Amino acid sequence: MSEFILSQLIGTIKPLNKESVEAADRHLNSLTKPPGSLGRLEAIARQMAGITGELAADLSKRAIIVMAADHGVCAEGVSAFPAEVTGQMVLNFLSGGAAVNVLARLAGAQVSCVDIGVNAQLEHPLLISRKVRSGTANMTQGPAMSREEALRAIAAGSRLVDELASAGYRMFGTGEMGIGNTTASAALCAVLAGMELDAAVGRGTGIDEDKRRHKVDVVRRAIAINKPDRADPLDVLAKVGGLEIAGLVGVILGAAANRCPVLIDGFISSAAALVAARLAPQALPYMLGSHLSDEQAHSGLLESIGIQPMIHLDMRLGEGTGVVLSFHFVDAAIAVMREMATFESAGISRE
Amino acid sequence: MSEFILSQLIGTIKPLNKESVEAADRHLNSLTKPPGSLGRLEAIARQMAGITGELAADLSKRAIIVMAADHGVCAEGVSAFPAEVTGQMVLNFLSGGAAVNVLARLAGAQVSCVDIGVNAQLEHPLLISRKVRSGTANMTQGPAMSREEALRAIAAGSRLVDELASAGYRMFGTGEMGIGNTTASAALCAVLAGMELDAAVGRGTGIDEDKRRHKVDVVRRAIAINKPDRADPLDVLAKVGGLEIAGLVGVILGAAANRCPVLIDGFISSAAALVAARLAPQALPYMLGSHLSDEQAHSGLLESIGIQPMIHLDMRLGEGTGVVLSFHFVDAAIAVMREMATFESAGISRE
Repeated sequence: MSEFILSQLIGTIKPLNKESVEAADRHLNSLTKPPGSLGRLEAIARQMAGITGELAADLSKRAIIVMAADHGVCAEGVSAFPAEVTGQMVLNFLSGGAAVNVLARLAGAQVSCVDIGVNAQLEHPLLISRKVRSGTANMTQGPAMSREEALRAIAAGSRLVDELASAGYRMFGTGEMGIGNTTASAALCAVLAGMELDAAVGRGTGIDEDKRRHKVDVVRRAIAINKPDRADPLDVLAKVGGLEIAGLVGVILGAAANRCPVLIDGFISSAAALVAARLAPQALPYMLGSHLSDEQAHSGLLESIGIQPMIHLDMRLGEGTGVVLSFHFVDAAIAVMREMATFESAGISRE
Repeated sequence: MSEFILSQLIGTIKPLNKESVEAADRHLNSLTKPPGSLGRLEAIARQMAGITGELAADLSKRAIIVMAADHGVCAEGVSAFPAEVTGQMVLNFLSGGAAVNVLARLAGAQVSCVDIGVNAQLEHPLLISRKVRSGTANMTQGPAMSREEALRAIAAGSRLVDELASAGYRMFGTGEMGIGNTTASAALCAVLAGMELDAAVGRGTGIDEDKRRHKVDVVRRAIAINKPDRADPLDVLAKVGGLEIAGLVGVILGAAANRCPVLIDGFISSAAALVAARLAPQALPYMLGSHLSDEQAHSGLLESIGIQPMIHLDMRLGEGTGVVLSFHFVDAAIAVMREMATFESAGISRE
């Protein structure tokens, strides 16, 4: 993908359908409940109408796209787990035993697992191989990847969404696996959202406070050596991001270009949403929050993007687990639009 | 129900099964995820194990019990809707068109709709008629109901749970309908949780600030004339509570006595949970929060009981809508226990 093709992709993202949003709002106000009393379920119903152009679209065919990649920065000792866990967990996703698989089955969602940059030779009939490179470079020594590699990872994400949309998928979610990726995400938060380093860097999969302070220092060094330009999100993504994060930027932009809702998982996915929103603010209305992660910077990150979480379960697993739990609320909003009685049909008095 | 029988019911509520909680914890720590990273889903899994005595019980047969009743205090003009809406909405529940029905279908839950004190003659083949009296008296003039009536409503709730448990139902939720019932719930919060009146009284189905201030005054007068004894939860419930709230106290105590989890809906249901927890603190481990309502006092009320909400959707509808959405998380916790791979089975490295 050249930068020109990225601009073209971004250019295809259109505003929501205003007439459909208004029609959804009128319908919601005719239903047997005090106006607005279903809160954000009503907002979701309006958003889905605006995205799809239908009052209550069939969004039952949905996929969670799990992008997996390794991080050269793991050499600095930033994670509680060894780097080889990335590839091991990918095989776990492919055999259906990870948390995201279990919860995706409950949500009727397909798990599409993508090797976008795992530092291992992975073979599995269900694996989607889109390896851009075998993990990023150690960002404390120089850029994590080149600008061109970041563009290729974005292209891989958006093309996968094109393929899935052609096959009838109408709702997407972002998931990821990559030992070390909270470090890259913290760097993106610091640069693109202007967060203090100590606020941006959290405990990831479960490091202690000493190791977290070391991680703060690692991120500080990565930013110092690379000098990412916060006015150029692609530069920041390439220098201190990750391949799975770049792939998810592509998934988000691709979903918006295909007029499909895309649910954003936890901290790492939200870092991808931050990059996508900075590259293409018009993609934001296609995004929905899912859960509020236990990772300390997640709340501030979501605020700086402008999306709200629905679930507060203190989860900090990633993989897309918050998203697959949240598809339920989209189903609920659509069911309300389709099945609830109106004041008139039920013969109920209004104020 | 005499007070002696209430004591007997409370006496049958046993602590959770500690061995099962520990077995669930061991199993959770063997699964392919960082320890604790599924947050409150793991806590739910442990709680369900402790309640049922099984590692991953089958809780698919579940019912939302919607207790409906009228409130004499409506004569004071405290609600945005006329009192006859209570009965009209009950018929809407029975014909399946209300929000709770739509969301219960999504959750595979039965809606059991109970007339525990509606001020209308309701007839419907699906209606469960347990009318204690035709609405409470106006609590600004004297007690809402007698102590004996409160006991009868509690008994009706607990017996209904006994019947459903005998028919194989293993998980319950609380729902309600009763124009005026945020007024009674606010009074219970003020007396039993020691909340300031201005904090306890909210906008209910959507009154404006002037009407809310009037509602504060109504609750103040109700408490002043009745002088409920906060050391005697039954006295408070009878004097300033409601029949549907008393019925839900019975549902909660009955669920705990039957070793079944009970999910607590929004503000009114939580007021019932407050009364139940004050009558029988050992019932608390059987309760689960569901959503955080937009009603202003709900957060403080949940805190004073000691239960946490899972969903933040700014809903304020009641009926049990937050509960039926939340059954999903219990399903998720059980699925994690049943289906996730272990580190050993998946061949994944640990720290």
